[in-house]
Amino acid sequence: MRIAIDAMGGDHAPQAAVDGAIAAAEEWPDTTIVLVGDTSVLEPLLQGKKLANLELRHASEMIEADDEPVKAVRRKKDASMVVAGRMVKEQEVGAMISAGNTGALMTTGLLVVGRIKGIERPALAPMLPTVDGEGILALDLGANMDATAEHLVQYAIMGSLYRSKVHGVAEPRVGLLNVGTEAMKGNELTKAAFPLLEQAPIRFIGNVESRDVLRKPCDVIVCDGFAGNIMLKSMEGAASVIFSVLKDQFMRTWYTKLAAAAVKKGLGQFRKKMDYTEHGAAPLLGINGLVLKSHGSSNGVAFKNAVRQARVALKNDLVRSISAEISNGSE
Amino acid sequence: MRIAIDAMGGDHAPQAAVDGAIAAAEEWPDTTIVLVGDTSVLEPLLQGKKLANLELRHASEMIEADDEPVKAVRRKKDASMVVAGRMVKEQEVGAMISAGNTGALMTTGLLVVGRIKGIERPALAPMLPTVDGEGILALDLGANMDATAEHLVQYAIMGSLYRSKVHGVAEPRVGLLNVGTEAMKGNELTKAAFPLLEQAPIRFIGNVESRDVLRKPCDVIVCDGFAGNIMLKSMEGAASVIFSVLKDQFMRTWYTKLAAAAVKKGLGQFRKKMDYTEHGAAPLLGINGLVLKSHGSSNGVAFKNAVRQARVALKNDLVRSISAEISNGSE
Repeated sequence: MRIAIDAMGGDHAPQAAVDGAIAAAEEWPDTTIVLVGDTSVLEPLLQGKKLANLELRHASEMIEADDEPVKAVRRKKDASMVVAGRMVKEQEVGAMISAGNTGALMTTGLLVVGRIKGIERPALAPMLPTVDGEGILALDLGANMDATAEHLVQYAIMGSLYRSKVHGVAEPRVGLLNVGTEAMKGNELTKAAFPLLEQAPIRFIGNVESRDVLRKPCDVIVCDGFAGNIMLKSMEGAASVIFSVLKDQFMRTWYTKLAAAAVKKGLGQFRKKMDYTEHGAAPLLGINGLVLKSHGSSNGVAFKNAVRQARVALKNDLVRSISAEISNGSE
Repeated sequence: MRIAIDAMGGDHAPQAAVDGAIAAAEEWPDTTIVLVGDTSVLEPLLQGKKLANLELRHASEMIEADDEPVKAVRRKKDASMVVAGRMVKEQEVGAMISAGNTGALMTTGLLVVGRIKGIERPALAPMLPTVDGEGILALDLGANMDATAEHLVQYAIMGSLYRSKVHGVAEPRVGLLNVGTEAMKGNELTKAAFPLLEQAPIRFIGNVESRDVLRKPCDVIVCDGFAGNIMLKSMEGAASVIFSVLKDQFMRTWYTKLAAAAVKKGLGQFRKKMDYTEHGAAPLLGINGLVLKSHGSSNGVAFKNAVRQARVALKNDLVRSISAEISNGSE
């Protein structure tokens, strides 16, 4: 199988992408990695390394972190991200990975690769960290701020298939993000979505409150992008404040500094488990091809892990499964 | 001035309400407290105490925590909460306080007391805790799940007046809960509300991200009830998980237990500061009279503090100020 990596996107581009590509090519000889970017920059970073399953593809432009997404994708036709998208569209590769501008990547998915027939809105689906270290697939987290009840149902179907095909979760439990657990709780959107989710070909377990999410009440949680963002950033904000207060407490005296040493390791492990940048790349589901968003701060290991995810998704024919399930539903 | 307390609502009813009423009556001789409830229950709790400014008002029914709000308020015409609401409506008292069923109290506000002319949706406005201990007034937090841009503007005006009249904050800064700080970020609701908030007679400081809320970027934050609930419960959930992990870490060995002792006091103070049940009663703003929701777990001190809030609001003519500002805007 063939997987393209946008070498020019992310905080540590292009070095991190090159490192990840080399590591992936060495680990999986059955997979060809295509690094897309300015070859005059990429070539020297390979340091003479020759691998039969590592290719370079030249792209003369790149999309910057602060580029306006739609404009950038439309104008920079030879940007590394756009070229990688075109390779997916033309089935020259099975998947693409980018750590670049999220909005531009979603636009590339929509405009360059294209949607699966019957999907109204593709959704970005990162893993939310949970206490047990396993995580919940949350969608939509950022592709579309507003959603209809029908969109939430499609998110639920796509998220379930991702969890079972890529993570091997049998019959993933799907929850609806809401303000209470009773069936008729919520706003107009969640009230309309609830009965549709009950009818959908998924294992719907009902409403899930945001205060319970970290305890992993379900395997997939669906929400509109606005509510999802508020949830994620509220948790991040609370955690950041608590850890900073904790640090202040520990730094007060020599005695509290000793106390800090006693629990430092355990807390560090917990923080790492709770760091959602550690939970792999987020798929853009609903696109007619596999597009993975790696975190902006991705290093070589993160890129290699994204390749691992892409391989599993390709082996298990994720995109075709989504397409089949969606066209089933619309018959 | 006269303030009614629904003596039958809350987890510790009626004892907590009676304790709070006695303490308030003793502290503020210029204020008459009217305890509303079953006098055959309340009378013995006074233990023979006679205060010139403490009255009992009989109400034969009560609204339970799990009563369906609208039905309960309509049917139980002699419930303590409804009787207190009627006293506000008929200006027999200036304010009412209840720790009972939140939905029923909002219904009492709407149906028994009534809205201020020009207000489309009353809003429940608790204080969110912040790191500095001061807090942010957040509205709407629970009265209405969905909101229009115009509702958010009314929330902003009412919240600003409450902060200045009751908390003495000069020119309170108002933020719009959103997913990014740039002006055009967000969903359809926030995009429509942003320009209206810029025009409103308030000090609008723009969008505020949920991750920054605990750092107190503003004095008032406006949002629809759904997003507000997601924000609050996400923070609660994150805090609860982190403190439970912390506890596990501290309980591991005798050495970590010693470490716990070193920071226990400081962390305890922080948790207390972050506990939103400690931040007083939440006003139901937009009602044509003062209605305060005390937390369900209120003890006597919490009821007394709610009386303190009510006194300040009455002295500063909060309701009339809101009414004047709203009718100004609609001219």
